[in-house]
Amino acid sequence: MSDLIRQLKDIIGDNYVLTDKSDLDNYGQDWSRLYQPDPIVAVRPGSNQEVAEIVKLCQANKVSIVPSGGRTGLSGGAVATNQELVLSLDRLNQIANFNPVDRTVECGAGVITQQLQDFASENGLFYPVDFASAGSSQIGGNIATNAGGIKVLKYGLTRDWVAGLTVVTSEGEILELNHALVKNATGYDLRHLMIGSEGTLGIITQATMRLANPPQEPTVMLLAVSDLPSVSHLLEHFQSNIDLMAFEFFSQQALEKVMAHRELKTPFADSAEFYVLVEFECPGEAEMEKAFAAFESAAENGWLVDGIISQSNQQAEELWQYREGISESIAHYPPYKNDIAVKPSLVGEFLQQVDSFVTTNYPAFENIWFGHIGDGNLHLNILKPENMDVETFKETCAKANPEIFSILKGFNGSISAEHGVGLLKKDYLNYSRSDTEIALMKAVKKVFDPNNILNPGKLL
Amino acid sequence: MSDLIRQLKDIIGDNYVLTDKSDLDNYGQDWSRLYQPDPIVAVRPGSNQEVAEIVKLCQANKVSIVPSGGRTGLSGGAVATNQELVLSLDRLNQIANFNPVDRTVECGAGVITQQLQDFASENGLFYPVDFASAGSSQIGGNIATNAGGIKVLKYGLTRDWVAGLTVVTSEGEILELNHALVKNATGYDLRHLMIGSEGTLGIITQATMRLANPPQEPTVMLLAVSDLPSVSHLLEHFQSNIDLMAFEFFSQQALEKVMAHRELKTPFADSAEFYVLVEFECPGEAEMEKAFAAFESAAENGWLVDGIISQSNQQAEELWQYREGISESIAHYPPYKNDIAVKPSLVGEFLQQVDSFVTTNYPAFENIWFGHIGDGNLHLNILKPENMDVETFKETCAKANPEIFSILKGFNGSISAEHGVGLLKKDYLNYSRSDTEIALMKAVKKVFDPNNILNPGKLL
Repeated sequence: MSDLIRQLKDIIGDNYVLTDKSDLDNYGQDWSRLYQPDPIVAVRPGSNQEVAEIVKLCQANKVSIVPSGGRTGLSGGAVATNQELVLSLDRLNQIANFNPVDRTVECGAGVITQQLQDFASENGLFYPVDFASAGSSQIGGNIATNAGGIKVLKYGLTRDWVAGLTVVTSEGEILELNHALVKNATGYDLRHLMIGSEGTLGIITQATMRLANPPQEPTVMLLAVSDLPSVSHLLEHFQSNIDLMAFEFFSQQALEKVMAHRELKTPFADSAEFYVLVEFECPGEAEMEKAFAAFESAAENGWLVDGIISQSNQQAEELWQYREGISESIAHYPPYKNDIAVKPSLVGEFLQQVDSFVTTNYPAFENIWFGHIGDGNLHLNILKPENMDVETFKETCAKANPEIFSILKGFNGSISAEHGVGLLKKDYLNYSRSDTEIALMKAVKKVFDPNNILNPGKLL
Repeated sequence: MSDLIRQLKDIIGDNYVLTDKSDLDNYGQDWSRLYQPDPIVAVRPGSNQEVAEIVKLCQANKVSIVPSGGRTGLSGGAVATNQELVLSLDRLNQIANFNPVDRTVECGAGVITQQLQDFASENGLFYPVDFASAGSSQIGGNIATNAGGIKVLKYGLTRDWVAGLTVVTSEGEILELNHALVKNATGYDLRHLMIGSEGTLGIITQATMRLANPPQEPTVMLLAVSDLPSVSHLLEHFQSNIDLMAFEFFSQQALEKVMAHRELKTPFADSAEFYVLVEFECPGEAEMEKAFAAFESAAENGWLVDGIISQSNQQAEELWQYREGISESIAHYPPYKNDIAVKPSLVGEFLQQVDSFVTTNYPAFENIWFGHIGDGNLHLNILKPENMDVETFKETCAKANPEIFSILKGFNGSISAEHGVGLLKKDYLNYSRSDTEIALMKAVKKVFDPNNILNPGKLL
């Protein structure tokens, strides 16, 4: 052990090998706060080469490695609970070699999402993957979990913005995957295999990211809707008439929590069962007319009972508050959260089944529904009843978990829409992936990491 | 052998087991026309289940399988030269379960690209992957080679439109990959591993494809350019001002061939060294003004010497002729073709190096350059000199191949931008992929196809 520490210090210098308890607690934990951190050491290499040397040392000493980014994950993918070495990529935070013709830029794995967004913006471009933890999540972690967020409908997932990857293998070799090419039909795309693999196949140390033209100022519609089939109609209707940026959803219960928490006034005179927030670019008069026409025909069809269209950027932001404030407004309960997805067309039916299951079996529980349902992603939040202690609540929810996942399986849904599997959901993987798929994944894992030193126990 | 044929007939019926020489020649060959077909039998199953049973039978009898689509490939990925069973997917040509909310539709692997384009159009939507062989290529083959085409700049590759895949494994199991979900962070994305794997990891029998909103009528600019750095400037300039659909390139030599072949008049009074064709949507006045302004500032910067902007759909089509007619105008030479890619920003430098290499070493050869260079994809075409016989020409070009690929390797380019590796380029794979990558690919192949019965000898 002390021998390992000495060798690590030889590779990256004394300052970057951390063994203090506070450091280990910090680097061994993610935002899930569900697991007791217990790493052996945390290291902060400063180059791809140093990462490679550390991996070789770990391979030789059979020490397991937990690759570590911003640790904003909610599935325990980056926690170290079992005497692992935490390999933090946070010093690989350089943005370099911006190329305005290719519209790409090279990012160390430790670049903060917001840092890349700002860099793009300073150069007249746009990095479109955005979510609540953009201020602390890191690009390497985003790629390892294929992060999604609030603009998936228009811009897709992190996967869609990765032009090239630098990956250190379990043998300590440095791979350059895809060389940032747009077109490259030369066999299996290992870049795509690495994306979303949660640090179990290789350590992502660098990525060439694509950038887009900045969007126009957004227009936002907030719509009051009386039933779930109408939500589905609205999605189809608006998608075919406007290029949507976001199509978000929340229930009256969610709205009430936000209004109470942020002291907002009600957006509509009469409350409705559900609300839909539609965001789109409106570059000119013609587009605004089209949007108005779509709004009016939706009203004529009875798919919405009331609606507001933002007339300024400020009003657009105000309307977003009703959706963005939900998570924080229920954080204190605390809620039992589940990040799940079905096909967008199945959201209504799935939601009703889960809702009815919870209401029937757990009548004291309150369900708060919201999500990015333009892409089928629902955030299920069950609130702890006031008179129930936290432990009982957690146990009860844990018991409900397999039942909810069984319903999900009936819809061919995903047990993790965008947070990954990590430790939290690995026991439930078979609700979303078949036995054969899991066997193939295990065999692929063995190809890339035969001695199981890369994030062992996660995902599989 | 006769036993195998009988068993195949038992599975799919007599009519769909083909052993006539003409059928075998037809089903054993692709558009490369470089290899002598020699399959043992060709079969045309009518369902996923039948495909699975055939694979099991082949596995039991150690018979190799060549999955077969429209066979429009140019790399020999679908040829059967070695007593294989050709498994044609052409009867799996149903389009079903169109979902207007999800904007997806299920296609059998044998659906013709054009058939899907037409279906989308009939339903008010758009399938954007398009290329010259759209009238005969099949969706399964497009996916197996991750086909690109002429609208990659805006719409990406086939990969970007595959929501879900049904794949028959080498053991004859039917896998449903991704269930057409938008968001699904549950481990390795085997769908993306299958895409571009050229039938070596599994047999794609069905796919759920995404559809988009139809584009507006396109506007086309044809620009005369005096040097390669200006082409690069124009790409950066127009990309940042307009959302481009296509950015195509050809040389004066290419233009001359087209004009002669299609009897077109010259687009400009004075000829230039190079030409760029820019296509974009122009939904309104504001966009057209923006495009005009971009054109004018490009001219002021000296990046173009002349230009035409289409004023009607008909004129747009006329301008496209100068680019689209190139291949057919040189087909009779015949040309030595190479489909290669570098990063868009490196196109100019790469082109110059190859051009100078060919001019120096093969002064009798004429290079015709054109390509989708907005995405870095160049079609190198060397014309056979009139006084050289075809065999000598082919041999000479084959000798030049490694030298051109060496230059390409220096640019971290791809030896196959969009046609795949197949048989044609497998000996050159190491010019684009590292030894470690190739070793990993081989190990992955072994996981999915341990007995090497799926398209053996292709790609790897």
